[in-house]
Amino acid sequence: MARERRRDQELRERARKVIPGGMYGHQSTRPLPDAYPQFFSRGSGCRLWDVDGNEYVDLMCAYGPMLLGYGHPKVDAAAAEQMARGDTLTGPTDLIVELAERFVEVVEAADWALFCKNGTDATSAAVAIARATTGRKQILVAKGSYHGAAPWCTPFDTGIVPEARAHLVTFEYGDLASAREAASQAGDDLAGILVSPFRHDAFQDQTEPDAAFARGLRAICDEHDALLLHDEVRAGFRLAFGGSWTRFGVEPDLAAWGKCLANGHALSALTGNDRMRDAARKVYLTGSFWFQAAPMAAALATLAELARQPIVPTLERLGQRLRLGWQEQADRHSVRIRQTGPVQMPLLLFDDDPKLEKGNRWAAESVDRGAYVHPWHNMFVSAAHTEADIERILEATDPAFAAVASGP
Amino acid sequence: MARERRRDQELRERARKVIPGGMYGHQSTRPLPDAYPQFFSRGSGCRLWDVDGNEYVDLMCAYGPMLLGYGHPKVDAAAAEQMARGDTLTGPTDLIVELAERFVEVVEAADWALFCKNGTDATSAAVAIARATTGRKQILVAKGSYHGAAPWCTPFDTGIVPEARAHLVTFEYGDLASAREAASQAGDDLAGILVSPFRHDAFQDQTEPDAAFARGLRAICDEHDALLLHDEVRAGFRLAFGGSWTRFGVEPDLAAWGKCLANGHALSALTGNDRMRDAARKVYLTGSFWFQAAPMAAALATLAELARQPIVPTLERLGQRLRLGWQEQADRHSVRIRQTGPVQMPLLLFDDDPKLEKGNRWAAESVDRGAYVHPWHNMFVSAAHTEADIERILEATDPAFAAVASGP
Repeated sequence: MARERRRDQELRERARKVIPGGMYGHQSTRPLPDAYPQFFSRGSGCRLWDVDGNEYVDLMCAYGPMLLGYGHPKVDAAAAEQMARGDTLTGPTDLIVELAERFVEVVEAADWALFCKNGTDATSAAVAIARATTGRKQILVAKGSYHGAAPWCTPFDTGIVPEARAHLVTFEYGDLASAREAASQAGDDLAGILVSPFRHDAFQDQTEPDAAFARGLRAICDEHDALLLHDEVRAGFRLAFGGSWTRFGVEPDLAAWGKCLANGHALSALTGNDRMRDAARKVYLTGSFWFQAAPMAAALATLAELARQPIVPTLERLGQRLRLGWQEQADRHSVRIRQTGPVQMPLLLFDDDPKLEKGNRWAAESVDRGAYVHPWHNMFVSAAHTEADIERILEATDPAFAAVASGP
Repeated sequence: MARERRRDQELRERARKVIPGGMYGHQSTRPLPDAYPQFFSRGSGCRLWDVDGNEYVDLMCAYGPMLLGYGHPKVDAAAAEQMARGDTLTGPTDLIVELAERFVEVVEAADWALFCKNGTDATSAAVAIARATTGRKQILVAKGSYHGAAPWCTPFDTGIVPEARAHLVTFEYGDLASAREAASQAGDDLAGILVSPFRHDAFQDQTEPDAAFARGLRAICDEHDALLLHDEVRAGFRLAFGGSWTRFGVEPDLAAWGKCLANGHALSALTGNDRMRDAARKVYLTGSFWFQAAPMAAALATLAELARQPIVPTLERLGQRLRLGWQEQADRHSVRIRQTGPVQMPLLLFDDDPKLEKGNRWAAESVDRGAYVHPWHNMFVSAAHTEADIERILEATDPAFAAVASGP
C-alpha cells in the first residue's frame, strides 16, 4: 500500500545535484527506509503533509521543536506581530529582558539567561563559561551522549582535528562510580560535568537516572568545586516546567535549552547562576541573529501557554497510552520489544535486531499507513496530540507489528 | 541635546539583573558611548526607533543582515506565508531545493549549497569540509580576521582551551609574501586558506585586496593542492551579486554566506564545488532550526529582488556620496580622518586617536542627532537608504565633526 511519491522523488533527484548527498544532518532520510518522505509541504497541529499530499500523524515533532502543535495560533501570531514591528535590528528589543526575566522565574536554578540560535550554541557556551568560571579545563561527558554538532561534541569526527576534543573525560551514563572515576582522573582540573536529564542517544535504549545518580553528580561537582551543566536542549519542558532534575532536588549551575522553547521558532538559551555571571559576561558569545525579536515573542507566548495549563501530565498520559498500546500489539503478535525512557519521549527497539531490520520494517509499514514514527531515534509526544491521534497511530502500527511478526 | 532615555535606562537596569553584563555579543552597547540606546522598538526601511521613541537613520543595518530595508514587504510576506504553511517541520520543504539551485546559479563557483543559521556555522563547516576533502589539518587565516564566535575562531580566548586553535597558521591580510611564508610553514599539511573578500576587522583601517593578492592566494592553493575558502558572511551580496572576488577572476572552492542573504531572517549558507561534495556529505552538519522553511522563503524573495534590479551600483553611489560628504565636513572642520574599504561598507577612523576619544565623540554627537553611526566597526549602506537619508546623516554628522574639532 505504498503511497504516491512522485513529487518527493522528483525533488530528491533535483536535491542530489545541488545538496551534498541530497540532504544533510538529522533531517536527511538517507539512513531511513524508502517509505520515508524527504520533503514536506505543510504542518498543522500534530499533522504533517508530504509534498505528494500524504498525511501523517507526526511523532517526531520536528525532532523536538514542536511542543504545542505546528502553526500554533497564539505563538505564531506573537511572532508575526513582532516581525511587523522589527525582528533583526541593530539592537535587541525589550523582549530580550522580558524573556530573560521569565526564564529566571521559571528555571529554579537560574539567576540570568542569554539567548542564541542552535542548541549547540548553548551547550558550547556552557562549556566555555564553566572553564572561564573555574579556570580549569576538564569537562566530564557521558560516553556517546549527543551535545551538538560543533567540533568539540559532534558524534562523527570527519573533518574534525583530534585537538578539538581535548580535555573531555567520559563516564557511563547512570553509573555514578564511573563518574567518580572520571572526576578523579580530571583531578584539580575538573571544570564541570555536562549531562542530559536522561540518556536519549540514538540506536540504544534510553536510560532514566535515579535520584542517587543525579544527586551523586551534584555531590561530585560540589566536592571538586566544579560545575554541573545540564543539556536540556532535547528534553527541556517535556519532562517538567523548569529544570528536569528539580524532582530530585538537584539544580545545575548552567543549563542549555533549545528545540521547543519557542515552539519551532529559532531560539536556544543558556541559564546560569550568580557564580557564573562574571564569566558569562567575559566569554565572547554572539551570532548574527541571536537578538531576533520575533522568536523571543514566540518564546514568551510558548512559556505563557505552558504556564496557563501544565502540559506535562497530558504528555505523560498520551505517552503512557502509546506505550501500553505498542506493548499490547507486540505481545499479541509475539514480537519482543523494549520501550525505554520517559513515555513522552518514546523509543521502541526490537529484541534480536542487530541490523535494525525489524525496526526499519515496523517503521516503514507505519509510515506507509500515516504514522510518522522513527526506528532508532527517540520520538516526541506533543500537546497537540489527542487520544484520537494516539489511536490513529496505533491503528497504523498494529499491521506494522504483524509485518514484523511475519518475518522478512 | 541629549534625547529622552528613560525607558532605555529602565530596561538596562532590569537587564543588568537577568542578563550577564546587561547585554552580550556584538549588540551590547557597553563598549560604546552613553548616547547609544541599547533597546529598540521598531524598524522600517532604513529607520530605527528606540524604546523612547527616538528616530534614527541606521547605518549599521543590524550589523549587516538588513540589505533591502527593515520590514521589506515582499521578503516578510514570503516568510509569513511560508510560516502559515510550515516552518520548522520534521523534514525540509521543497524550498531548500529551490534555494540550493538558486545559489548554484548565482554563485559562479558553486556546484552545491547547504544551509545553516549562524555565519559561524558556515565558516566552521567550511573548515571541516576543507580538512575532510584534503585529509590535511592546517588552515591559513589572516591575523586578526573575524570568522565567527566558535572556539576555533572567537576573537577573545576567555573560556577557550588553547587546543581549540590548533592547526591555524596566520598571515598578514593583503601581504602575499606573508601568505606564501605561512603556506610553506604548513607544508604538506596545508588544507586551505580562509579569507574574507576584504579586511573588515574592527578598530583598524579596512584593506581592499588587489588582484595580485587575490590571484596569488588562489595560486598558492593550487600549487599546494589546497582549497581557497571565502568568508562572505559580512560582505557577500554587498560587493557583488555572487562571489566578491569574481571581479578578479578568482573563484573559491568553498564560500560561507550569512547576514543579509534573507534580509534579516535567520539563515546562513555554505557553497562549494564538486571536489568537496563527498566530504560535505560526510562531515556531520546539523542544527535544530537549519531546515526552517520561512527563512528560506525570505532568502528566495531577497535573491529575487537582487536579481530584479542590481543594487550594488546604488549602494556604491550612496556610499560614495557619504564618503565625500564626510571628507568635506572633516576638511572644513580641520579634522583628519581615514575612510577605508568599499564605500558601501564605510569605516571612519580619526587620525591621532589612540583612545578613540575623537571617534566616540563624533559617534555620540551623531547618534544624539539621529544618525546611528559606529565609531570603530564598519557600517553598512542598504538599498533602503535614499539620497535624502544620506543628506539626513550628513546633517547630523556636520555638528559632530565640529564637536571633535572643538576639542574635549
